[in-house]
Amino acid sequence: MPVTETDIQDVIGQIRAALAADHRDQAARLLLELHVADQATLFELLDPEERRRLLPGLGATDAADLLERVEDETALAAAETMSVDRLADVLDEMEPDEAADVLGDLPAKRASEALAQMADATNVQPLLAYEDESAGGLMTTSFLALRGHDSVGDATEYLRRVPTDDEVPYYLYVVDDNRRLIGVLSLRQLLVAEAGARLATLMDPDVIHVRDVVDQEEAALVMGRYDLAALPVVDGDGKLVGAITHDDILDVVETEATEDVYRLANVADSQLEPDSAVFAQVRGRLPWLYINTCTALLAAFVISRFEDIIRQVTALAVFQAVVAGQGGNAASQNVAMIVRSLVTGKVERGETMRILTRQLAVGVIQGVCVGTVVGIGAWLWRGNPYLGLIIGVALLGNMMVAAVAGVLVPLGLRACGQDPAIASSVLVTTATDCLGFLIFLSLAASMVHHLL
Amino acid sequence: MPVTETDIQDVIGQIRAALAADHRDQAARLLLELHVADQATLFELLDPEERRRLLPGLGATDAADLLERVEDETALAAAETMSVDRLADVLDEMEPDEAADVLGDLPAKRASEALAQMADATNVQPLLAYEDESAGGLMTTSFLALRGHDSVGDATEYLRRVPTDDEVPYYLYVVDDNRRLIGVLSLRQLLVAEAGARLATLMDPDVIHVRDVVDQEEAALVMGRYDLAALPVVDGDGKLVGAITHDDILDVVETEATEDVYRLANVADSQLEPDSAVFAQVRGRLPWLYINTCTALLAAFVISRFEDIIRQVTALAVFQAVVAGQGGNAASQNVAMIVRSLVTGKVERGETMRILTRQLAVGVIQGVCVGTVVGIGAWLWRGNPYLGLIIGVALLGNMMVAAVAGVLVPLGLRACGQDPAIASSVLVTTATDCLGFLIFLSLAASMVHHLL
Repeated sequence: MPVTETDIQDVIGQIRAALAADHRDQAARLLLELHVADQATLFELLDPEERRRLLPGLGATDAADLLERVEDETALAAAETMSVDRLADVLDEMEPDEAADVLGDLPAKRASEALAQMADATNVQPLLAYEDESAGGLMTTSFLALRGHDSVGDATEYLRRVPTDDEVPYYLYVVDDNRRLIGVLSLRQLLVAEAGARLATLMDPDVIHVRDVVDQEEAALVMGRYDLAALPVVDGDGKLVGAITHDDILDVVETEATEDVYRLANVADSQLEPDSAVFAQVRGRLPWLYINTCTALLAAFVISRFEDIIRQVTALAVFQAVVAGQGGNAASQNVAMIVRSLVTGKVERGETMRILTRQLAVGVIQGVCVGTVVGIGAWLWRGNPYLGLIIGVALLGNMMVAAVAGVLVPLGLRACGQDPAIASSVLVTTATDCLGFLIFLSLAASMVHHLL
Repeated sequence: MPVTETDIQDVIGQIRAALAADHRDQAARLLLELHVADQATLFELLDPEERRRLLPGLGATDAADLLERVEDETALAAAETMSVDRLADVLDEMEPDEAADVLGDLPAKRASEALAQMADATNVQPLLAYEDESAGGLMTTSFLALRGHDSVGDATEYLRRVPTDDEVPYYLYVVDDNRRLIGVLSLRQLLVAEAGARLATLMDPDVIHVRDVVDQEEAALVMGRYDLAALPVVDGDGKLVGAITHDDILDVVETEATEDVYRLANVADSQLEPDSAVFAQVRGRLPWLYINTCTALLAAFVISRFEDIIRQVTALAVFQAVVAGQGGNAASQNVAMIVRSLVTGKVERGETMRILTRQLAVGVIQGVCVGTVVGIGAWLWRGNPYLGLIIGVALLGNMMVAAVAGVLVPLGLRACGQDPAIASSVLVTTATDCLGFLIFLSLAASMVHHLL
């Protein structure tokens, strides 16, 4: 049964008491009584000094299990407090992909010292070359693989030999003499097969796999599409070099979703949380506010060109924000739909025209609906039908701007190889603000004699 | 290797040609040559009439495999075109959770007719009672379970008997005589164990599980936290009633992420895609635009109280949108961070005060930074230091409004049992628009003699 937050708070209290009394062994014992996932949750809740005192009480294996599950920064900070010998021991016990993540984050000198000290660096070394966000950066090198001429009995023997906490316990991959991936069996197939049967006769030769260099988002799409528990990864020669497991993919999908939400809301650093350090938050948020300030001042400049008219008809100052704001709202609807559809693979290249015409149709309908209501409202409120007409038409126009910009900006960013979530909101809002004010105030200027 | 979009387009062309020549068998054969996940992708790309002609060419098993993988609406539409006999046959072949989803969406009369015709409705029947978005609504009833006194040999025999496309092929659950969950073994443990060993001696008695009535988001949190490939589900008596698999959880996480992004952007219907039917889009988007229109008119009303001042100092009309807009941007940063942290379980109850003070600190710093730049800019542009001062102070004030509203609104909605993503943006924007205009224009009114 999952441990509750209260349980964890209880154990934290006991661990703090033990550390205060300098009973480090007892503190370590208290921690190890928890499920390792809960150990990680608890460890994150301790402050850095407490972590520094608790960690040496754990054996290399327990420390490795723990550091595999904490946030990357927490693992890095812990690694930095260890001696090189201890660090090498812990890295030896970690899953290769997790060990590579720590090594990749450490200063180069310390990382190479630790690598040199490791008893078995061969699994980790090849992982260090991959981009963090590629399939290669995500995969583990500890998977199960045998040859086609091996028998089911051989496979059972092999499984008895390799450590049981191996990361990919669902499939056995089959490779040829050049280690090229040629087939896959589920462990369930092995269980029900005759001991003498050759793997080549049992395996499914049609193995879904990805290249090591593809982006982790593509790997996530493939795994989601084919409902796999693990996805084998091959290099340029078709050699099996690793496998990505379902829990890594779940992390990718959650991280990418947070990144989308944050970027759409102009938060640059997707690691931020509501109670992250104030300075870190300002660093991740202020730059985008400044960029938005520039575009807001651009919109202000547009308004300033119409100050004479506004002096004569102050109602324009009252309604200008409605026109710009509703355009912005409609545009953010478009951007949200396109960004998510690109992530979930529901928009393919070449569909731009179809999406654009459809969104333009939606924009026109929404513009007519909102424009009519606001226009009539403004007419009744201010007693001037022309004011209502101008507002209504301007809303319709700005909704069309929203539709065009809301489709072309994110798709254009994507076509340039950029993440559409990153800059779409600010670019699209610039369009709906500036053009919204321009359409509304120009219309008013051209009909100013009706408004006086 | 995953099939590319071009491959699928090729096969679609061939299938369309076969259907046009009325060679339905050939069309079905072309479809079945693909991986079932690709069959689903292709099927979604056909138009309803083509689907209606293609489907009868598939046997019940193939049709079931296909309909398990398409979108719920597509499966429902297909189910509605079948005779009751055919539908019952197909439902019999589907995974129980998928069959239950189709039955739950069908009109009640047709669903009960189909249920009555099914050869084996016992697996499906209990699933119909669960809420769609609960653990019970997500789980499958086709899992592997044996008793503790059974041996490894018994388990192997059992695995040979049950169908191999069983949905939960990673774990074997152990239950007592009342079918209460008491332990778990991985298939890998079974593979390497002696045939005579009792499951009770091998199993891990500490099984992570959830209640059938918990929300699917909670099930996703537990699975992500403990890195499970499948999560057993129990009823109120602790009886094992089902299991949730990693691919279902991946769907949940993706769907919830899309829902968050959509709701934050005022799109009510998370099923919408950029090229969904125009009417469906308008239905899912227009209501929120109307709600935003109401709040925009409220903000317009605030401005209208200051028309006399604006007539005298038209620069206020130029800068008012900057003050309101920057507050809105800062607030949406807050809302995004809090909404995602609630989803990923990184914010616990009782942390409100700490988050609020921290966000207020961030708001003050951002307010001072943005306020200083815009204030000095306005001073230099318009040559009036008081105008700059008013804008700077108003920006600072509105950033503080953004911080308070951006924290309290989503946390308040959550505390009331609402999804904070749903109404946060509109409520928070109302606050930053109305109060932003009010602070800025009141300040200007109180210092109007310096502005003339």
